[in-house]
Amino acid sequence: MTPPDAIIRLEPGAVVILDQTRLPAATVERRCADVDDLIDAISVLAIRGAPALGIAGAMGVALAAEQAEADAGFEAAVRAAAARIAAARPTAVNLAVGVAAGLAAAEGAWGDPARVRALTAEAARGFHADEVDRCRRIGAHGAALFGDGARICTICNAGGLATGGYGTALGVIRRLHEDGRAPSVWVPETRPLLQGARLTAWELAQAGIEHRVLPDGAIAGLFGRGLVDGVVVGADRIAANGDTANKVGTYGLAVIARHHGVPFYVAAPRTTIDPATPDGAAIPIEERPRDEVAGPPPGTVPAPSPVHNPAFDVTPAALIDAIVTEDGVLRPPFALGA
Amino acid sequence: MTPPDAIIRLEPGAVVILDQTRLPAATVERRCADVDDLIDAISVLAIRGAPALGIAGAMGVALAAEQAEADAGFEAAVRAAAARIAAARPTAVNLAVGVAAGLAAAEGAWGDPARVRALTAEAARGFHADEVDRCRRIGAHGAALFGDGARICTICNAGGLATGGYGTALGVIRRLHEDGRAPSVWVPETRPLLQGARLTAWELAQAGIEHRVLPDGAIAGLFGRGLVDGVVVGADRIAANGDTANKVGTYGLAVIARHHGVPFYVAAPRTTIDPATPDGAAIPIEERPRDEVAGPPPGTVPAPSPVHNPAFDVTPAALIDAIVTEDGVLRPPFALGA
Repeated sequence: MTPPDAIIRLEPGAVVILDQTRLPAATVERRCADVDDLIDAISVLAIRGAPALGIAGAMGVALAAEQAEADAGFEAAVRAAAARIAAARPTAVNLAVGVAAGLAAAEGAWGDPARVRALTAEAARGFHADEVDRCRRIGAHGAALFGDGARICTICNAGGLATGGYGTALGVIRRLHEDGRAPSVWVPETRPLLQGARLTAWELAQAGIEHRVLPDGAIAGLFGRGLVDGVVVGADRIAANGDTANKVGTYGLAVIARHHGVPFYVAAPRTTIDPATPDGAAIPIEERPRDEVAGPPPGTVPAPSPVHNPAFDVTPAALIDAIVTEDGVLRPPFALGA
Repeated sequence: MTPPDAIIRLEPGAVVILDQTRLPAATVERRCADVDDLIDAISVLAIRGAPALGIAGAMGVALAAEQAEADAGFEAAVRAAAARIAAARPTAVNLAVGVAAGLAAAEGAWGDPARVRALTAEAARGFHADEVDRCRRIGAHGAALFGDGARICTICNAGGLATGGYGTALGVIRRLHEDGRAPSVWVPETRPLLQGARLTAWELAQAGIEHRVLPDGAIAGLFGRGLVDGVVVGADRIAANGDTANKVGTYGLAVIARHHGVPFYVAAPRTTIDPATPDGAAIPIEERPRDEVAGPPPGTVPAPSPVHNPAFDVTPAALIDAIVTEDGVLRPPFALGA
């Protein structure tokens, strides 16, 4: 397992992240030395994954507090920066939750900038540690859902990279591996940004867990040939009724799993559940740039052809057999409202 | 519509093809001046698509006849070359059918190499013309299945490029467009070789037909939001019971269409039906090279990670609402045996 501090950490003057756009070819860090640079790193998915975005949000507030002038405008400056960070990506609720956690730590201390700096930094590091701990508990609960030697399909990356440490969906798989229960993993490459091929395969190779990468279009054929025992995916936002937004392709995977009678599980910390979102229709879906699909001109798509590039889709609760959180395994009907 | 001769033609000393690996960035021809080069062009998918492979097979026999020594070994040399061409790719039955058509034209004339050369060339050009004619008839039959303004999803490229002219699935869409019935087309990019993004979008843009390219993983979300009225795809081989091998991803598209109650149609000439293959389990599925998915090293997949890259999958007949051939619309149960 890649150490949590190697994935994301708060240093004096910077949030330092493992640059996920460069994997697997290069393992390089990106030092985000101000809030604008952190927002850019979030926008280009150098750091991504709902829980990791929460950590980045909390650390971003600490960075903003460190760099704001310690004058009468201090609180307003930090709050403005926090709002910009929270708006960097719209779908994962964790980003806003992490930012809110950072701001909450400063409550009552705004008159003392030095104290706010210490409190927000402490809160951000604590938020990170909590997320890693939550993932370990998710792994333990989720592993109980699978038999020995299970052939598991996931999608995108819900691993240590996405969570600042252990992983949600991959946390379940890690736990099976740690317990000697010999999981093997089907890894769809996950176009357009290939987080499955680039990141999940990288994590599984590092952990010595058997796996195989495939084009997204080859998923259904696996199920048709009886090669998948179960599915576990992460989540970017879970609505109160259990509808789940996750990386585009997840909904198709859920439909295919149901068609073949294969169980479909979502693994996510409670920070990913948004009680204020009643159902999937209320989850905003980010449309990403054309070039992520087409590449830079001339690219793989003819110039006159428009591109549809949603980052996420919504899997209705009816297709989800269980949601695994740090507190245990939830079965339908889901009632996750406040 | 790109003229059939611009896609593939037999010239003295060569089979000349539009190099489909270079589209859409560059429109360049590849001159296959001997059988080995033609086999290479087929292997790298510079020419692809089941009906187009049939045409290439027939033209390949003519090229082999032109280039074989006119001596006692003439027939054996041509037959050996023909066998190598037929084996260049295993799934599409058309390749072998086209080769067989070329050889059949020489029957009874083997003692006269000059005559064999003329007969095989004439047969190859006739085979090409027949395929284009079949596609036009498929288009007419298939168009009757769709309403005006239909929002149609396809996959890969079953267009003029794949058929030496008009197209099968895209032939249906072309006909709707020609009749002023305003189809619009969802075009999955179709990893790993992106024939949807590169080829289908190119053809639709040239024809002025409304369309939008999307990652394969975004298909299900379209259906979930009610944005697809029907699906039409091509085929690489149709078994006697209607089970259909087509580009990997087709089976998942069929499962998704059925889940949402959207009709799923296969469009293919009768040359794609193989009465000798009883069902999908008997269709050989080609496994393609790792680098098609991973790219050249360092690539997008970590070096230790194996890749699963099947070129095709099999859609069971039970998920197919109709098969459209040049002779009309076939409805289940399909009985296509000899």
